[in-house]
Amino acid sequence: MSVASPGTSDVAPAVLAEYGAICRQALQGYLAVQADRGAEYLGAAVRDYPGRGGRSLRASLCIAVARVFGAATEDAVRTATALEMLHNAFLIHDDIEDASEERRGQPTLHRLHGVPIAINVGDALTVLSLRPLLENRESLGLRVSLRVLEEAERMARETVEGQAIELGWRRENAVDLGEQDYLRMVLKKTCWYTMIFPLRTGALIGTRDGLDLDEFVRFGFFLGAAFQIQDDVLNLIGDQKQYGKELAGDLREGKRTLIVIHAMNQATPAERARLTAFLSLEPEQKVARDLIWVRELIERTGSIEYARHVAHGLAGAASLEAERLFRDRPEGRNLQFLRELPRWVIRRS
Amino acid sequence: MSVASPGTSDVAPAVLAEYGAICRQALQGYLAVQADRGAEYLGAAVRDYPGRGGRSLRASLCIAVARVFGAATEDAVRTATALEMLHNAFLIHDDIEDASEERRGQPTLHRLHGVPIAINVGDALTVLSLRPLLENRESLGLRVSLRVLEEAERMARETVEGQAIELGWRRENAVDLGEQDYLRMVLKKTCWYTMIFPLRTGALIGTRDGLDLDEFVRFGFFLGAAFQIQDDVLNLIGDQKQYGKELAGDLREGKRTLIVIHAMNQATPAERARLTAFLSLEPEQKVARDLIWVRELIERTGSIEYARHVAHGLAGAASLEAERLFRDRPEGRNLQFLRELPRWVIRRS
Repeated sequence: MSVASPGTSDVAPAVLAEYGAICRQALQGYLAVQADRGAEYLGAAVRDYPGRGGRSLRASLCIAVARVFGAATEDAVRTATALEMLHNAFLIHDDIEDASEERRGQPTLHRLHGVPIAINVGDALTVLSLRPLLENRESLGLRVSLRVLEEAERMARETVEGQAIELGWRRENAVDLGEQDYLRMVLKKTCWYTMIFPLRTGALIGTRDGLDLDEFVRFGFFLGAAFQIQDDVLNLIGDQKQYGKELAGDLREGKRTLIVIHAMNQATPAERARLTAFLSLEPEQKVARDLIWVRELIERTGSIEYARHVAHGLAGAASLEAERLFRDRPEGRNLQFLRELPRWVIRRS
Repeated sequence: MSVASPGTSDVAPAVLAEYGAICRQALQGYLAVQADRGAEYLGAAVRDYPGRGGRSLRASLCIAVARVFGAATEDAVRTATALEMLHNAFLIHDDIEDASEERRGQPTLHRLHGVPIAINVGDALTVLSLRPLLENRESLGLRVSLRVLEEAERMARETVEGQAIELGWRRENAVDLGEQDYLRMVLKKTCWYTMIFPLRTGALIGTRDGLDLDEFVRFGFFLGAAFQIQDDVLNLIGDQKQYGKELAGDLREGKRTLIVIHAMNQATPAERARLTAFLSLEPEQKVARDLIWVRELIERTGSIEYARHVAHGLAGAASLEAERLFRDRPEGRNLQFLRELPRWVIRRS
């Protein structure tokens, strides 16, 4: 059965809701301790982003994979919760680094509390994520717990390296970039923590370290890259209220999305020069007239359609990988969720 | 033999030089990998602060305590190196949070590369510190390695909580503070990672988790508080070149040092009102005339002398703790270093 077949039911929202609720409860438990322990200036700020909702995609993926490989939900909850904490830590620091104004429909944390406090709250969430990973010991034992920690170290390292590449491109106003550069950056910045880590640790927990985890990298890369490209598209054409961030924020922030890279490479020399100059400006220097011009250039070069085409191809490749990776796993909701995921990441709004 | 006796030799500089060199070499090894692994925008920036020198006090303390409790230097080097990485990560984020201009005699990292890249480099050093802690497994085994990780989680948590208190005081322009508030903040912000963690993990590694580590908290608190107060004093009266940070930076940044708290509580109502208004200003709003006035107020209230007096008392209490904690440990350079440390922290310039 092909994953992309039209007959598949929509199990993804139900699975996300179920596992998301479990992880949110666990997360609130860990973060409540923070306030009780006399961290009088930290508690509320640490709970802010996690309390704004979100789909718990990463946490749900980790649990679903663990279950597909035979674990109980309980065995994966701590790892999934740690990942949600780290995700929120990344968001807080990313929002400062990108000078973003909104997150999940509300002002970003640094706009509420200032940059110094927001940096520290991000650091706090990073630190707090270690607690559930250390408590894994209770259900997974010493050896598997330490393996999960090794996976977390690798994942966090890939993420900061990906972030460094994106920030370096902006700092240097890099314009000679191609699709391969973009995909390598996204592999590190997005795919590793959003998809590859949950896949690897889910399998690790489910099999008690009985599989070659490198088998999961391609699936996670295809899924994560499709996910990021869809995010880039939504930033330009989405419903702002549903999307929760300011529209065209990526353009204002000078991000090298696949769309911008494609437009740059399709543009005439004169357009290329103007786009290069636009990208070099600080966010607050970018005026509406130029933003509209860039938006029109993107239309003219067909860059959004191109990005959608690439995302579709990646989702198709992910579907094939899912079939291969999980072919001998028992049928059920968790497996169905994994099969639906490639289609879900490019259809979400 | 009393630690403060004038006859004691100066073994501290020699021990710091020896263990510091070992840890710097290990650190460079870990950070070199970072550059080779294709993190093209991260390598040099990650090595910047660690390459600027520093005394490796924290790392040396960890190794000395481990050796006093019977471990080989090699057993403690990974933990000591991880601590140095975290220390540099804290410095990078602190420098942004404090809007500091200089670190170890050179421009702060965010002044060189901008705030976004500096935040990410701090995050990178935090992540990289996990690697040596995970590699502890090779020499210490699973159980003790996981115990060290638990200690690291506690330490990092105390540090971000302490940082949150200091930032919260500035954000709210808190002025109703006393010595106890200051000491509690410093216990978390400075003492835990500078002294208590190296003491606890040194003993943990030396005895393979055979001691009650809470025994070391008082010694670490006395030592660390004396260390921080001496740092606050040096910020006002030190030799800028030797100190490596801009003089009176604490005043410009509105830090609630013991000196400022004492001056506030000794001042007349009119002076108190003026000092309160001064502290509420952003660093760039503070003019030279007001800085000079605050400096004179601090002279008039005898606040530097008072802070020195408190630091001296803390160092004396630390000496007594050292005698108690290490009384049955074998004589030698490491024990002598621990005995000298209380005097060293208040005499350093």
